Amino acid sequence: MQNTKIVRHNTEIEIQDSTLLVGLPGVGHVGKLVVDHLIEQFEAEKLLEIYSTSFPPQVLVDENSTVRLISNIFYTFQVNGKDILLLAGDQQSTNSEGHYELCDLYLDIAEEYGVSRIFTLGGFPTGQLDHVDEVLGAVNQEDLVESLKEHGVTFKEKEPNGGIVGASGLILGLSKFRDIDAACLMGYTSGYLVDPKSAQSLLAVLSSILDIEVDISELEERAKEMEKIVANLVEAKQQQQQQQMLTETPRDEDLGYIG
Amino acid sequence: MQNTKIVRHNTEIEIQDSTLLVGLPGVGHVGKLVVDHLIEQFEAEKLLEIYSTSFPPQVLVDENSTVRLISNIFYTFQVNGKDILLLAGDQQSTNSEGHYELCDLYLDIAEEYGVSRIFTLGGFPTGQLDHVDEVLGAVNQEDLVESLKEHGVTFKEKEPNGGIVGASGLILGLSKFRDIDAACLMGYTSGYLVDPKSAQSLLAVLSSILDIEVDISELEERAKEMEKIVANLVEAKQQQQQQQMLTETPRDEDLGYIG
Amino acid sequence: MQNTKIVRHNTEIEIQDSTLLVGLPGVGHVGKLVVDHLIEQFEAEKLLEIYSTSFPPQVLVDENSTVRLISNIFYTFQVNGKDILLLAGDQQSTNSEGHYELCDLYLDIAEEYGVSRIFTLGGFPTGQLDHVDEVLGAVNQEDLVESLKEHGVTFKEKEPNGGIVGASGLILGLSKFRDIDAACLMGYTSGYLVDPKSAQSLLAVLSSILDIEVDISELEERAKEMEKIVANLVEAKQQQQQQQMLTETPRDEDLGYIG
Amino acid sequence: MQNTKIVRHNTEIEIQDSTLLVGLPGVGHVGKLVVDHLIEQFEAEKLLEIYSTSFPPQVLVDENSTVRLISNIFYTFQVNGKDILLLAGDQQSTNSEGHYELCDLYLDIAEEYGVSRIFTLGGFPTGQLDHVDEVLGAVNQEDLVESLKEHGVTFKEKEPNGGIVGASGLILGLSKFRDIDAACLMGYTSGYLVDPKSAQSLLAVLSSILDIEVDISELEERAKEMEKIVANLVEAKQQQQQQQMLTETPRDEDLGYIG
Repeated sequence: MQNTKIVRHNTEIEIQDSTLLVGLPGVGHVGKLVVDHLIEQFEAEKLLEIYSTSFPPQVLVDENSTVRLISNIFYTFQVNGKDILLLAGDQQSTNSEGHYELCDLYLDIAEEYGVSRIFTLGGFPTGQLDHVDEVLGAVNQEDLVESLKEHGVTFKEKEPNGGIVGASGLILGLSKFRDIDAACLMGYTSGYLVDPKSAQSLLAVLSSILDIEVDISELEERAKEMEKIVANLVEAKQQQQQQQMLTETPRDEDLGYIG
Repeated sequence: MQNTKIVRHNTEIEIQDSTLLVGLPGVGHVGKLVVDHLIEQFEAEKLLEIYSTSFPPQVLVDENSTVRLISNIFYTFQVNGKDILLLAGDQQSTNSEGHYELCDLYLDIAEEYGVSRIFTLGGFPTGQLDHVDEVLGAVNQEDLVESLKEHGVTFKEKEPNGGIVGASGLILGLSKFRDIDAACLMGYTSGYLVDPKSAQSLLAVLSSILDIEVDISELEERAKEMEKIVANLVEAKQQQQQQQMLTETPRDEDLGYIG
Repeated sequence: MQNTKIVRHNTEIEIQDSTLLVGLPGVGHVGKLVVDHLIEQFEAEKLLEIYSTSFPPQVLVDENSTVRLISNIFYTFQVNGKDILLLAGDQQSTNSEGHYELCDLYLDIAEEYGVSRIFTLGGFPTGQLDHVDEVLGAVNQEDLVESLKEHGVTFKEKEPNGGIVGASGLILGLSKFRDIDAACLMGYTSGYLVDPKSAQSLLAVLSSILDIEVDISELEERAKEMEKIVANLVEAKQQQQQQQMLTETPRDEDLGYIG
Repeated sequence: MQNTKIVRHNTEIEIQDSTLLVGLPGVGHVGKLVVDHLIEQFEAEKLLEIYSTSFPPQVLVDENSTVRLISNIFYTFQVNGKDILLLAGDQQSTNSEGHYELCDLYLDIAEEYGVSRIFTLGGFPTGQLDHVDEVLGAVNQEDLVESLKEHGVTFKEKEPNGGIVGASGLILGLSKFRDIDAACLMGYTSGYLVDPKSAQSLLAVLSSILDIEVDISELEERAKEMEKIVANLVEAKQQQQQQQMLTETPRDEDLGYIG
């Protein structure tokens, strides 16, 4: 197997001037929840599968006990006569070189299908378990900010101040070299849990941007389940924090660099 | 040395329509115990050795104080006029890329020797120290399930739900691209110890599938020795668990993703 | 994207017999503070940007919410009719191979622009939080020592005795193969914090070597802020040390190699 | 810089049917102490230097404050009309692939200089701080055992049972492919400290094998210094062990695989 292997499913299909939505696993799996939800609701068609030696060396097992390699997959669907491309997947690269190589490959494919703008979808970790109904944005060129604000996206100086790690960030950075407009949309989330509630907030903003109707009832159900788990965790964390206050002493790392 | 180096031992031998059994080190060393046992009992012939820069950079020392590089080795034997190939080894790759590269090489060799079906053998970790006489299966195409059930293999939706890591899984996943039927057979095992008892369970199922007689007396002896060790560990773990109940507080990792 | 990608900003510019100053992130960010300060004060011109798959796979977010890939950047300015080149950046390579590859590339570029001498700027960790107004030097050929002493650089046998890690060291070592004079200048610093005060000491020595005037008022302000933080940390560390004296027992690592 | 760079110092020199001694850093630095000692006493001549991107990305600082890249170096000297080659160095590879690549390169060079036998020198960790005057051997072909026993080398079934890690082991394993006789000689050592006393034991055996006179007075001095350090460590460890008996509970790793 080469570093990456591409398996194409539909070679006839005509796509042009399309929008790419990237929803790979990440903070709170917010981006992944949104894109997986769109694929299901719009019965998106599988375009091509990407396998990489940078993915974890394992297979996943399906309902019928059949296995499949870790992959990232391009899907497509049409809505209001517009072509939407989606990038979904099980995992991201396990190493730095692989991240760059794969994101560059994703942009090759985006250009092949005439992608004119990209939205990478992710989560913005707050460290707080209570929900904040907000979506943070970052862009690869300044003049995208105003139009996104009109759809309810928040922008904050230098936020996330740790930068944006992984495909959501790299695709923005690398798309500059190809003059493709790109923005990263991040739902606020604790960072501790898969967060369907944050996915709802992100989906609301996204459907306004794309001008499409999305049924979020399923995400709402999942959100309710998670709320129960969160309730328990809040309790657990409180106990933990009390414990720590009693036992903890500052470690060297805590005295780390302060810019 | 290239990334991988192949040393061939028998180039005359005629093999066709054969079955490949893969038993590399892994959970409970169940797969390795089974394949090593078959190699010994059927006096399998060494076909070729594979060396790789992805194996640990070390040598092992034999009875007579001679060293040998870490390797994976193909063996073969005939039974009931059928050709059986076996893949055994000291270690698996130490990195993700090496795993993919080696498993792809193993499949090149499998095709060279006309392998029509593959069984990768491993262990399914239960976390429980008491033995469960069961073998879990996963396949690379659904229509293998029924025939394997007839030989006593269990199938469970999405199990192992952490997927199958390493060669046992990758070989299944990659063999899809080559239209070779492949199944992974996993003996239930604690995950804490080398488990000859689980190897017996797996061997029983496998000999039924291959329709061969296997003498397991030697594995039984080893199993008895392990039972003594287990007895002691059970005690040790109980003490440990009591200790932990007294001292432990949940850590952030414990609050990790829940799908 | 190749392993490394170069984006050139000014191809007309004529540079010869220049001096290269390297200030990448490192101990106390001393070198980075100095070079970033010079770039600002002398309004240095951007010469070229270097992107690498060895940099962390992420983007940074600017004031206006636009992102940029991690990069290392060459700048240049003229002073007293002399050409000065500067190498600044967000990060260093995340792996060993990348460090060697990038430092070799930096020297290719240095030769292209006729660099005749190099100063790599860094910090020398003392483990003490109180400031020492001293600059330690190391060179890639002995006859550089005397002239640098005249500018107040200290030299100590085999110091730093752990060697010089990263670009500051590698560029010195690799420039030997190209017969370029190079010295590493290290401001004394605790190693716990970004240290603008150490940067002042280093800048004083450097401006004497380069015979240029530098306004350090801005660094002084930053230094004052840090002094407050340091005061708090001193307290925190004292508490910590007391704690440790009570709880700690020597670990194997503490019994490690002693030459 | 390529993966590896070779700088040759003496291209005229005629060497044939020589013996190679490998003494790179490792357990107790026993092998390094022996080879460095021989280089000094016999004023061995520098043959060639090897630089590698697999070595740590740093430089070391000498007495005169000049830096040098991490390297492995071949030396040579003549004694009793026999040519001796020595491989010394600051460090070994930091990654698995680099280990294989470098050891293969070392054997290319060995063949170029007509090396007919190789001794890799190292330490055998006992975990005990008191000295054992013994040298353990391992070989790459059985018929070397008898002759080495006559020189006082001990051989034990499957010892070291963890195998031999790094260059000392790999060079033995890889030299098989080139039909070069090779043995690894390991001085018994605690594994906690640089061990000149173990180096003396190893040197005694080695000088008997090579039939050369070696003055070990300098190593004896260093050994005396270490004995003082050891005395203190013994005390420290006893205290530590008492502490642990009071605090420790078995961890999962302690319940790890038992073959």
